[in-house]
Amino acid sequence: MTPEELLDGVRSRRRRALGRAISLVERLGPEGRELAAALHPDTGRAWRVGVTGSPGVGKSTLLSALVAHLRAAERTVAVVSVDPTSPFTRGAVLGDRIRLADHFVDPGVFIRSMASRGHQGGLAEATADAVLVLDAAGFDVVLVETVGSGQNEVEVQALTETVVLAIMPGSGDGVQAIKAGLMEIPDVLAVTKADRPGADHLVSELRHALALVPAGPWEPPIVPVVATEGRGIPELWAEVERHRAFLGAEGRLEARRREGLGRQIRALAADRLARRLDRAADPEFLDGLIDEVLERRLDPAGAVDRVLDRAGLGDDVGEG
Amino acid sequence: MTPEELLDGVRSRRRRALGRAISLVERLGPEGRELAAALHPDTGRAWRVGVTGSPGVGKSTLLSALVAHLRAAERTVAVVSVDPTSPFTRGAVLGDRIRLADHFVDPGVFIRSMASRGHQGGLAEATADAVLVLDAAGFDVVLVETVGSGQNEVEVQALTETVVLAIMPGSGDGVQAIKAGLMEIPDVLAVTKADRPGADHLVSELRHALALVPAGPWEPPIVPVVATEGRGIPELWAEVERHRAFLGAEGRLEARRREGLGRQIRALAADRLARRLDRAADPEFLDGLIDEVLERRLDPAGAVDRVLDRAGLGDDVGEG
Repeated sequence: MTPEELLDGVRSRRRRALGRAISLVERLGPEGRELAAALHPDTGRAWRVGVTGSPGVGKSTLLSALVAHLRAAERTVAVVSVDPTSPFTRGAVLGDRIRLADHFVDPGVFIRSMASRGHQGGLAEATADAVLVLDAAGFDVVLVETVGSGQNEVEVQALTETVVLAIMPGSGDGVQAIKAGLMEIPDVLAVTKADRPGADHLVSELRHALALVPAGPWEPPIVPVVATEGRGIPELWAEVERHRAFLGAEGRLEARRREGLGRQIRALAADRLARRLDRAADPEFLDGLIDEVLERRLDPAGAVDRVLDRAGLGDDVGEG
Repeated sequence: MTPEELLDGVRSRRRRALGRAISLVERLGPEGRELAAALHPDTGRAWRVGVTGSPGVGKSTLLSALVAHLRAAERTVAVVSVDPTSPFTRGAVLGDRIRLADHFVDPGVFIRSMASRGHQGGLAEATADAVLVLDAAGFDVVLVETVGSGQNEVEVQALTETVVLAIMPGSGDGVQAIKAGLMEIPDVLAVTKADRPGADHLVSELRHALALVPAGPWEPPIVPVVATEGRGIPELWAEVERHRAFLGAEGRLEARRREGLGRQIRALAADRLARRLDRAADPEFLDGLIDEVLERRLDPAGAVDRVLDRAGLGDDVGEG
């Protein structure tokens, strides 16, 4: 496949070309960067929706139900999963997840897991570029599945217009995190497994927690869902659409995209520097520094200076 | 207070000097760096124990009970809290937390919250230096309270010899995270609020999850605790001591400290670069870049190049 054929294939939303293009940007090399740059003018049409939450809350079942809902409405949809615990990642198609397999053969659906990149660094950049590719490919909706709370260096707010937080009864973490201001307030809250005991209690707890944060012009709705049965899914998507309409007014969409881009640029810059540090701080060099620190001839901050110097990133000026 | 008086005060474990010293290293300026470097030769005697877990699992009640237990055994103890939801941070001394207040007047106890640093960056460096100061001050035990799962850029494994994960019944996140290999395996697991329904179930779930990860020479024990009543606290601390004895054999302690230092050096280097990026990517400059990206004259990766150039951190070579 020549670069031109690849570009054409992505623009025509051909599965093989999409797979190749994402593999290419995942490598973070010059070819991937050129491809992303060439596709960038085609982006900006997809509605990008983040679906985030702790492992085990049922994000992938929720995603599967959303995909089915969107397909029934004849919308094309791509899913990028950055959750290593996701069945999308593990390829699980057993039990009630069998329906995921249906989506894999539907040409209006494209599903891709980014999790394997996790251990090598560069996940933020690879994910941003995968979303870029799928946006350029003309999918109506791009869903981005992430684990909440920064476990994987991908800031879903930076990549999407609407963020759905999935939270289940019996897990109080999210409520505490919202109350404490630890968590970015999502645009829509989905209470998953809402047929379990404690769902009503969770809804009121969330309402209470949200009431404690300064109110903006958008009040995040809370939607109970039972994704395995499709219950609440139309209501959930209706709230995403309502958020989209909200952003569509008064220049809010541009503000949101500007903010997201600013965060994305900063995150990708930090990510690139981290990889450069990793290359400079090879085990042998680091071992020598650690010896010196353990022998108290060098303090840890001095060791940091030496690593930065070696990476060509030294000359930091002191600051407060 | 002259720098010499400050050093003497820290070495004599005087409360006022400790407070000043930590405030100084928190500023991340040259005086703080000099102080940390001067104290570094005095470090290495404290047993540093991380206590980590999601907000709401009862870490601070657990810490309070551990402090009481250690004081009863005439051990001096310092607590560094990096959890913004912690009562240590919020100064809450109400209800069953009244006992925290007792510790504040005991000269064998020093409690410090680092949470206010969170929004300015540099938390990892400030926390590492605070632990260094308290180690140099000669506390027998330094407890480091963090929120689990990377929410706050402080890697507790890098700073401590023993990590205790606190996890409560009804919150399945930890179990999922261990199974998925998302979470660093702690050295000791504390099942908090173990008088609640589901505690026994959680213990067996954790046992099952731990059985799935490759076994090392140390098998992490699981200790149910009811910290409000002190139940399980002696058993928990006995496991920490057993871990300490385990590390004491066969050169394991040095290996652990080497690994921790390596991680700490890398994390602090990344942290310093992140602050340097923040200074270079001022809002006006970033706004100009975002304009170009929105007008599709520049792609996000190109904007990253420009930010790095401006910070004097450019000239990255492509890599895979």
